Amino acid sequence: MAEALKVGVAGLGTVGMSVVQLLAKHAAQIARKSGRAVAVTAVSARDRGKDRGFDVSTLEWFSDPVEMAEKAQIDIFVELIGGDSGPAKDSVRAALKRGVHVVTANKALLARHGVDLAVLAEDNNACLNYEAAVAGGIPIVKTLRESMSGNDISRVYGILNGTCNYILTRMEAEGIGFEECLAEAQRLGYAEADPTFDVEGNDTAHKLAILTSLAFGTKIADDDIYMEGITSISTADIQAADELGFRIKLLGVAQRTETGIEQRVHPTMVPKTSAIARIDGVLNAVAVDGDFVGEIVLVGPGAGGNATASSVVADIADIARGDETPVLGMPAADLKEYRRARMRMHEGGYYIRLSVYDRPGAFAEIARSMGDAGISLESIVQKRHSADEAPAKYDAEVPQPVILITYETTEVAIKEALEAIMSKGVVAEQPQLIRIEKLN
Amino acid sequence: MAEALKVGVAGLGTVGMSVVQLLAKHAAQIARKSGRAVAVTAVSARDRGKDRGFDVSTLEWFSDPVEMAEKAQIDIFVELIGGDSGPAKDSVRAALKRGVHVVTANKALLARHGVDLAVLAEDNNACLNYEAAVAGGIPIVKTLRESMSGNDISRVYGILNGTCNYILTRMEAEGIGFEECLAEAQRLGYAEADPTFDVEGNDTAHKLAILTSLAFGTKIADDDIYMEGITSISTADIQAADELGFRIKLLGVAQRTETGIEQRVHPTMVPKTSAIARIDGVLNAVAVDGDFVGEIVLVGPGAGGNATASSVVADIADIARGDETPVLGMPAADLKEYRRARMRMHEGGYYIRLSVYDRPGAFAEIARSMGDAGISLESIVQKRHSADEAPAKYDAEVPQPVILITYETTEVAIKEALEAIMSKGVVAEQPQLIRIEKLN
Repeated sequence: MAEALKVGVAGLGTVGMSVVQLLAKHAAQIARKSGRAVAVTAVSARDRGKDRGFDVSTLEWFSDPVEMAEKAQIDIFVELIGGDSGPAKDSVRAALKRGVHVVTANKALLARHGVDLAVLAEDNNACLNYEAAVAGGIPIVKTLRESMSGNDISRVYGILNGTCNYILTRMEAEGIGFEECLAEAQRLGYAEADPTFDVEGNDTAHKLAILTSLAFGTKIADDDIYMEGITSISTADIQAADELGFRIKLLGVAQRTETGIEQRVHPTMVPKTSAIARIDGVLNAVAVDGDFVGEIVLVGPGAGGNATASSVVADIADIARGDETPVLGMPAADLKEYRRARMRMHEGGYYIRLSVYDRPGAFAEIARSMGDAGISLESIVQKRHSADEAPAKYDAEVPQPVILITYETTEVAIKEALEAIMSKGVVAEQPQLIRIEKLN
Repeated sequence: MAEALKVGVAGLGTVGMSVVQLLAKHAAQIARKSGRAVAVTAVSARDRGKDRGFDVSTLEWFSDPVEMAEKAQIDIFVELIGGDSGPAKDSVRAALKRGVHVVTANKALLARHGVDLAVLAEDNNACLNYEAAVAGGIPIVKTLRESMSGNDISRVYGILNGTCNYILTRMEAEGIGFEECLAEAQRLGYAEADPTFDVEGNDTAHKLAILTSLAFGTKIADDDIYMEGITSISTADIQAADELGFRIKLLGVAQRTETGIEQRVHPTMVPKTSAIARIDGVLNAVAVDGDFVGEIVLVGPGAGGNATASSVVADIADIARGDETPVLGMPAADLKEYRRARMRMHEGGYYIRLSVYDRPGAFAEIARSMGDAGISLESIVQKRHSADEAPAKYDAEVPQPVILITYETTEVAIKEALEAIMSKGVVAEQPQLIRIEKLN
């Protein structure tokens, strides 16, 4: 058997510690499967003295990850620092420049600098693997880079953020509001103290940008993503969705259209019968539609130290085995420019929740505005206040919720119709708009 | 770019035709992704004159696949003939002996001769890839061989036969019996004229034997599989399952236990809330439980020419890219002997449907027999005939269905209890027994 492959791990947080433990625990199996032993020989973290439950004294220690990337006697540099700049970026670049392979879980870095890093990796005959950067333990990067080679992909979509999915699942199960669920997610460690990045969709967008490039062979376009978070979702929406046969999920969707590729992150109505609708709690799921294979769906843990470590180690084992896959599935020079499909051209069905003043003619105004914009309605549900909170008598000034489900139309038509409705003074507040995703 | 990789396709049925078409249609993409063009240069089928919609005259033609494997100027031999002996086996062996890589969709061949073929492939530095042999378009072989390298796997299970899943799904949705569903599946082309191999579980067992080896690093033991088909499942069982919060699926399960590895194929009660319960129709799904990753589930089409071709071409693209993975995930010499866990030691919950004579003391006999065998009951449901078919008055000689759900116990205890119950003459027919699978 060849000499052991030497691994340097930069960042000894939850994931870094799991990687070190996994490589030790399953060393024999990994060697059998890869044809080569793999050993951690160098580490980098801030505090050398911290008790980590294993002996760092036998390892080469670097307080500066960039120095480790530049100088350590290693074959693979594992970047688990995080962030799309600073030491994460600098150390990854330094390693690749030396021809040292890189394995990373850093979605922000890949989304921001993936193409540049791919070029750098190619120029130096180094691998850059990042299975853990998208959907944690789910092997979606490998599936797209390798298993789908024979397919023209029309759409890739998924639940890519466990925090949001946990919140939406709890809101539905318990009938409680967003703020309360968020607080609980924070208490349980499923949400950060500052949850903005998760609940506003940025985290999903980073992962989607990587998936889009892999699925469509285009350059990564992480700043060209339509993004809406889940903060506006109310229990009223979740309840209405349930009654209409839907569930609400925060999806990242990349889809080929006639005018280009849509990249969008937004709360989405998915039919209860779809596979994606059944993904609850912190789980992630990714679906890929290929012209030959049809649709395949991968489900699993999207985060957590051990699940993420599983993907990091699979990336290491691939390198140990000698499997060298182009960073973005093909040589960087072959990646096409990303051509954005304008969101206003998006086609689909829509869920609209209006708060309507119950005046004579109000319904007619709404129906006319939709008709004028060329929109057909699949259903209209007027939701009276429930019995115990019903107004004592008819009061035109107490707005009533009205739910509209449209047939397939365009974003521009919907916006036009809603503007018309707003201008007529028949609705009490900004309408809620949730896109319906067409699924099998 | 290197010279084109030459592919010979043996067998031009549905899958073979799809492979030829796919390689032509997506030639440019496959070359970009693999770093090497891939071209079909030789084919073998029975009838050269048959119109296949493409020109075979430019290709090297062999009426004998073994001759093609022995003589054609090819880098990869694609075996799509089928069967675990005869020309399929002979041609695969002939190709490997020459050091020609082999890609096959042949589950029977792998299940029967996988270890021998792995040795032959290793001895001749050839790859043997077979993604399409298990669960069609789902990349489960790659996931187990590569993505799970860093995990100790405790269980792999799945819905591996689309015909059975179609029948069970229809029985539940329409409330119709097995025979009627089978006839419809045959009419729609989802079931063979002779469906024995599917509905008795053999097809699932072949696939399970391969998964077991990949998951546990053991030699393939395809004749050491406990097997029960779906022919005994009645609408009464499906309805009772529904009322108790379960669905019935034909699962293949391989599970590590204290006494060895269980391999079993049988109808299984799965909680409605589980991911596997939602897999309907001809879809397949495979779940893997790893100590680091947790559970991942892959869902997709398990059959069909195009989906199968997608996996065949992914295998070809891997070889084109230079990715050489050991046939069974590690060198054949490192595979451990399969140690069978006795089915009588199987532990789990059970669903039991009895047809009980409604005599005084009958219930007490049943309860005592279960208690004597050390079995605790989670629920007992006596299912009176529905109102419109109720007997006019109490009649001890008209048997009534009684459903028992047990807490976790052993197969041997259940068998002992059922024998005791049978011996007391309180039940009118052979009890129905369906195992409950513990799922997340």
